This record gives sequence, structure tokens and C-alpha cells, in this order.
Amino acid sequence: MPNQLTVRHHALCGRLAEHALDALLVTHLPNIAYLTGLRASAGSVLVAPDRVHLVIDSRYSTVAATLVSSAWAPDGLQLVRVNQSYEETIRILLGRSGHRRVGVESESMSLRQWNWLNDSLQGTEVTLVPVEGLVEAGRIVKDEQELASFRAAGQLISEAVSPILKLVRIGGREREIAAEIDLTLVTHGFEDRAFPTIVASGPNSALPHAHPSERALEAGDLVLLDFGGVYDGYCVDLSRTVCIDPVDEEVSRVHAAVCEAQQAAIATVCPGVVASEVDAAARSTLARYELAETFGHGTGHGLGLEIHEAPRVGQSGQPGTGAILRPGMVFTIEPGVYLPGVGGVRIEDDVVVTEDGCELLTNGSRDLTTW
Amino acid sequence: MPNQLTVRHHALCGRLAEHALDALLVTHLPNIAYLTGLRASAGSVLVAPDRVHLVIDSRYSTVAATLVSSAWAPDGLQLVRVNQSYEETIRILLGRSGHRRVGVESESMSLRQWNWLNDSLQGTEVTLVPVEGLVEAGRIVKDEQELASFRAAGQLISEAVSPILKLVRIGGREREIAAEIDLTLVTHGFEDRAFPTIVASGPNSALPHAHPSERALEAGDLVLLDFGGVYDGYCVDLSRTVCIDPVDEEVSRVHAAVCEAQQAAIATVCPGVVASEVDAAARSTLARYELAETFGHGTGHGLGLEIHEAPRVGQSGQPGTGAILRPGMVFTIEPGVYLPGVGGVRIEDDVVVTEDGCELLTNGSRDLTTW
Repeated sequence: MPNQLTVRHHALCGRLAEHALDALLVTHLPNIAYLTGLRASAGSVLVAPDRVHLVIDSRYSTVAATLVSSAWAPDGLQLVRVNQSYEETIRILLGRSGHRRVGVESESMSLRQWNWLNDSLQGTEVTLVPVEGLVEAGRIVKDEQELASFRAAGQLISEAVSPILKLVRIGGREREIAAEIDLTLVTHGFEDRAFPTIVASGPNSALPHAHPSERALEAGDLVLLDFGGVYDGYCVDLSRTVCIDPVDEEVSRVHAAVCEAQQAAIATVCPGVVASEVDAAARSTLARYELAETFGHGTGHGLGLEIHEAPRVGQSGQPGTGAILRPGMVFTIEPGVYLPGVGGVRIEDDVVVTEDGCELLTNGSRDLTTW
Repeated sequence: MPNQLTVRHHALCGRLAEHALDALLVTHLPNIAYLTGLRASAGSVLVAPDRVHLVIDSRYSTVAATLVSSAWAPDGLQLVRVNQSYEETIRILLGRSGHRRVGVESESMSLRQWNWLNDSLQGTEVTLVPVEGLVEAGRIVKDEQELASFRAAGQLISEAVSPILKLVRIGGREREIAAEIDLTLVTHGFEDRAFPTIVASGPNSALPHAHPSERALEAGDLVLLDFGGVYDGYCVDLSRTVCIDPVDEEVSRVHAAVCEAQQAAIATVCPGVVASEVDAAARSTLARYELAETFGHGTGHGLGLEIHEAPRVGQSGQPGTGAILRPGMVFTIEPGVYLPGVGGVRIEDDVVVTEDGCELLTNGSRDLTTW
């Protein structure tokens, strides 16, 4: 039985054939991790049907050598050590490859890299072809190995919710609480935070992309916490909003509406449904509370080796929201309401699409006050 | 008197003239922060001699509006709100601008963005010209406003050294200690860590780019700590290496050699000196201890709005190491020795070049054992 990385390689080669490509030069690091299992801060992979070349510098030669000889390695994996520079090494590799049409990932390749590589291959048989999303087309549906990581990560973050909510206290500063959350994630088993943790209190909570500030929490504050962890390379993402006593009646109403919107969105998730329909379910619930106008972002985003990936769960008509849900897709469901001057409420959990609906990967108290 | 951002704008316009450009489309986010004071996760700036257009989406409209009306704003700053997408908004802005030759930052612009923008401007009077490093050429020498931020940040991180070294204990796990360091940075006044903190113990310390693992610290371990903080947008970076008793004699010898190499490099820093000469001073000191072969990275890197920027302080012949030092340049000095199986020692501080040498921005115990 071929291992999982070999399966991914074969699926990608099918897409290369559709684009009449002999090979694909993979430069987006999460795509390299997906195809080889190597999580590095630099590297390139040249994927062809009969072989996979991993181009790596001396910092990663030990770990890459271990990878090549492991049972996890995709069939035909070969190491190429960078000599002078990545660009020069790739130029030589491509020149000797015998490939004619080689795709390059146009979203991650810089114009400078393109100009250099394209110019330096003039006069050779290689033609570079800008392409988009060929590896990502595979990544959007998670395989069993990835789902096992997600289930473990979902359980860890769910267990962290209660200790994290206990960090909320009058006088605590947003930045300090954010760093305490990061520490809690690590002590619960995560490798690291998945993104800079958000702690937004009082008026700051009304800003959907607030950064933690020096503000100290006060009585009556809404406190929005948005945090995520990396486990086995995979990102999970969770938001909770709590209110320090005394709780305003309007705040309770808004919180209940957001919870209801989240439940409506979750109930909509099913294979065959368009991603934007999930967004519409959350939005129409908020509309019944006359809060739809205060929901200024999409309902969710895909999760994986990156914290933001496909599918995009947003309003119909926006780019990327037309994806049809398939079993194995993993994404967040995070409606929010933001009232300038009052504050914001966002509740976020992660789901995986199953054969007949979805499975909630994350859990933990969603209560406004009794955390 | 013009404000600092106006001074930066004027200096950039001089470089535009040298390249016969009517304007520059700035897409690298740290460059946008440098030119406008706005630190955002998305945005573009079109810089021309008589005006600066800041293109920003609705998430940043409040903070951007505050900026435009402030005394800090560069002269001629105008806001452009993104309508459908950044690309479409920029296309329209460029089409109406009257500019003919417009530079684009080829290191930060993706091939996809370039292809779209270049194609969509066909038939207009605008010609896009890939350029490199035009804003960075100004950023390499820090102005008084930036140096004030660096001095404050340097003092904060120096004060954090002692409490951070106290986190090292037998049984503590690398990842947990790393998260505790991040929390300590925040409680000492930093906005956030400047990069993922490194805690590498025992054999892991021999890997120059180790990630914190689940490993628990043991007696006799070398423990390498590399951490940095962001203050006022600016990054400082510091490394210390300590040894848990019992201390091997070879480890003491290596530590002394690294400290001496760092001092030799610091003593070399002076206006007019080539960056690679600073590296050579560290390397030749280690050579006297027959350790030069174990020093597999450069001696330092520039600091600023990014954790790695120019100048590069590395071996002669490597790209970017030919910069001639000028007053106001800020960089790290961080020689290291890595002995597979034994461990690694790296000592890192930050300096600013002065009129007649350099000023040490960071401090704090460099001792191997009595921290």
C-alpha cells in the first residue's frame, strides 16, 4: 500500500497532466510540508511524475536525510543540497531535468524570483508556466492522517478553554492575558500559538482585528478572546467572548444572537452545500435580531497547515466562497457582532465536513458570564 | 520644520528620480509602516513627489483617518478606501494618476499580482517597472526617532535577561520555557515577541535553527536562549547560553571563545568599515581556538521594523555583506559555536553604529553558570 505522501504526490501528478505540465516547482512552504512532511523555513520541491526533488540548504540536511530514508517519504524522493543559492541550484536542477513545461506557483513566487529564473532559463528547453492552487486543490480535503491530527488538536484546545477563560480578570492587561493564553496553549500540548492571540476588551472588542493593547480590563467589559494552536503542524482556531459583571442586557441579547447564528451555520454544513450558504445561515439569523449590518466579516475560513486556507466561508459573490462542501473539509464557524462604543461578540469553533453533516472538532464553554 | 515621515518621503523621491520613476507602488508592509506610520496586515501606498496615496481596506479606515489628520502624517497623504479588491482599487488609482513610469517592489510583489496588474494596465499610459530596495535604502540608517525606540527597547530587553535566565531549570520543557520567556517579554513592556523564541537544550543546542521541543532540561545541559521583542514597531534580538551544573571544561572554553569573538566583532564596528570585516573579526578569534569551522552562520543581521533586514554582517563574498557601515545602522552581533553531540553556544547583542564606533543597545549577564 502506498504511503500517504505518495498518494498526495499521485493526486498532484493528475493535476499536472490536466495542465500539460511535465513538472511543478513548489515554493510555497506549507505546500512543501504537505508533499514531503518537512516543515522548514526555506526550501523548494520539484515534483514530476517519476521523481520528487527536495532542494534544501545545509540547516535542514540532517532532518531531510532522516526523512528520505523513512517509511513516510513519498516514492522517488531525492535530496538536492543548495550550493551557492536556492535560485542557482534550482536553475541547474531545471536545466538538467529534461522537463519542458514546468509550472511555478505564481502566488508565492516573487516577481524578482520569476524574472531571475525566467531570464536565466532563456535558451534552454524549459518553459516556466505560472499556475495557481495546484497543490492547494489537494489540501482542501483532509485525509485520515490529517483528520487524526485535527481531532487531537481539537480536543487539546477544548480542554484549554476553561483555564484560558479563568485568565480574564479586572486589572489584567490585554497583552499580558494574551501571553498567558499562549503559555496555556503550550502547557496543554500545542507546539506554539497558530497566530498572534487576540484579547480585546471593552471598546476594543468592537474592532474585529484588534491587537492586544496595554488596556487593563474593567468591570462591565466585554472581553473577546481569539486564539489557536499548532499541533502536528495543523492549526486550530477558537474564539470566546465573556463579560465581566455587571452585564448589560443588550450584551446578553447580542451574545445569544451570535450563539444562535453559529448553531444555524453549523446545522447547514453538509456535503453538496455551497460554502456561502453556511455564511447565509449565520447572516440571516443575525438579520432576525437586526444585527446583520454589524457582522462585517465572513463566517469562516479553512484550516490546515495554514491558519487561513480554502474554503472561504463568506458572502455569496465574494471570491472563493463558491466552493462546494465535501467530506474532509475543515473550517471555522465564527459569526460576530461589533457595536462601536458597546463592544463585540464572536464565537468560533472548528468543524470537519462528514458524509451526512459535520463533526464539531472543538468545544468548551460558550457562556457569557458563568465561565 | 517637516516631520520625520515627510523627510523619509523626500529622501525616497530622490531615489525615484535616480530611477526616472514618476511614482513607486509600495506593497511591502514594513515599508508602508516606515512611510506612513501605519502598521497594518494589508495595504498599499503609491508614492509620488507631490502626493502619497494610502490604499487601505475598511478594517483600517478608522486608524488611517486618525493618522491622516495627525501631526505625524507625511505632507500630501491621502486615503483611498478599497472598494472591491486591492488590485482593482490600485488599477483604477494608477489609471487615473497621470504617472507613466511606476516602480513596483519586485521582492514583495507576487508573480500573480504582477501578471494581473501588468495585463490590466495594457493600453494605458502606465508602464510598471520592477525595482528593488528603494525604500529599504532609507531604512538601513535609522533616524533619531527610530533610535529613541531602539534605546528604549534595548533597555527593556536587558532588564528582562535576569528573570528570563531564572526560567532555566532541570525538568523544564523547552517549549514551556519559550512560552514563559514570551510572557516575560510582555510583562517587561514589549508588544509581543519579535519571532518564535528559541530554547534549545543539550544536543538540540547544536542546531543553529532549533525549534523548542518537548525535551526536558537535564543536569549538564547547555541551554541556548534566543529571544526578541517588538517595541514601538521595532525589533530587538538577544541570545544567551547557560549551562546547568555540572559544567564540562570544554564547554567553558567554548563559551569564553564565543564571548571573546563577540567582543572582537563589537570592537571592529566603526563608520567606514565593511560589514564583512565585523564578521571576520569574530571568525578569526574563533579560528585561534580552532573553532572557526563550527561557526556556520553569519555574525549578524540588521534590525528595524523587521527582525532581519540590511545590513548583513557575514563572510566576505556572500550577498549583501559589502555594506559600508554608517552611523545609525543597527544590527546584531551573534557569533556561535555548534559542536554536534556536545551542544552550542551563541551570545547575541545589538549595536548601533555611532560617529566613532558603536553603542551597545543591549546588555545583561553573559555568564555561563552564575546567572
